[in-house]
Amino acid sequence: MTSTKDRILQTAARLFRRQGYAATGLKQIVAEAKAPFGSLYHFFPGGKEALGVAVLRSVGPTYKAVFDQAFDQAPDLASGLARLFEAAADNLRRTSYADACPIALIALEVSGADGPLRDAAAEVFEDWIASFESRLLAAGLPPEAARSQALAALSALEGALVFAKTLRRAEIVETAGRQAAAEVARALGLKA
Amino acid sequence: MTSTKDRILQTAARLFRRQGYAATGLKQIVAEAKAPFGSLYHFFPGGKEALGVAVLRSVGPTYKAVFDQAFDQAPDLASGLARLFEAAADNLRRTSYADACPIALIALEVSGADGPLRDAAAEVFEDWIASFESRLLAAGLPPEAARSQALAALSALEGALVFAKTLRRAEIVETAGRQAAAEVARALGLKA
Repeated sequence: MTSTKDRILQTAARLFRRQGYAATGLKQIVAEAKAPFGSLYHFFPGGKEALGVAVLRSVGPTYKAVFDQAFDQAPDLASGLARLFEAAADNLRRTSYADACPIALIALEVSGADGPLRDAAAEVFEDWIASFESRLLAAGLPPEAARSQALAALSALEGALVFAKTLRRAEIVETAGRQAAAEVARALGLKA
Repeated sequence: MTSTKDRILQTAARLFRRQGYAATGLKQIVAEAKAPFGSLYHFFPGGKEALGVAVLRSVGPTYKAVFDQAFDQAPDLASGLARLFEAAADNLRRTSYADACPIALIALEVSGADGPLRDAAAEVFEDWIASFESRLLAAGLPPEAARSQALAALSALEGALVFAKTLRRAEIVETAGRQAAAEVARALGLKA
């Protein structure tokens, strides 16, 4: 059974990624999490900001695990990258375009000001980029090329999700994925 | 002199792109626009939603003109694309990372629900994509390739802006731009 704390965290994560941090009130979170209002401040004494940081810190590793799974099941990095884009497109379709990147909206909302929310969002993005970068390094790319390829591939995914969600066309993510995979295959000297 | 209506529109555009649609109240808009409160409903009888739609419709052509300028001043499409990414990186630095994509935040906020705001955001993205696509077509790419290249290049820009703004590193946009320009050069058979 999910604990009250986990229900609050998962509900907040869903509402923040779908409707945004500013649009989500603490009352809605506890109501949808079926938690007593006081429990929110019990588990997150820092209130909404602390809850936002906790959401970002829990979502980061969860999605890094999704990345890892796509890559670990694929014969090479280019195919793994293509799978990652396909999984993101499937996720858009399965949720009727509700779920794209789990943190893009909150990241854009909080990144204008210094503070723990911006820091937590930056850590998540940096972790995702570093994760793909280390795979490219391990596959033999020189450091600068590994960094560039990782940034370009994940930028393509992030941007395609913004367009695909707004335009309600998941195939945009698949198109961007084929191109990103071809680019990585070329960089690694694999057959595209 | 800027009219009251234009001041309201420009102030709303700035607040929506920087802090978000949900986080921005009408009182803040009229206060920062130095406009009487009643003037907002005079010019935008539909209130906040109508103002949001008007902002999206005014921002779309403004930034399409920025695209056009980058391309019209460049010797070829790949160089034009590189200039577009460079201009976006300069804009991030010049505004201390306040301004990335003018509509990404509001698009992610409103795209979860059907309605005029989602429609207006989708129209802006579609216009931008179609604009680059038509240049690629005119340069000789077949229709499917032109569409894919346009989607991939603008996804790379959009995603790189999300990372660069959150991580406060404008060079991410420049890195993504070099790779997007090389990809377009390759597709067009230009020297990279």
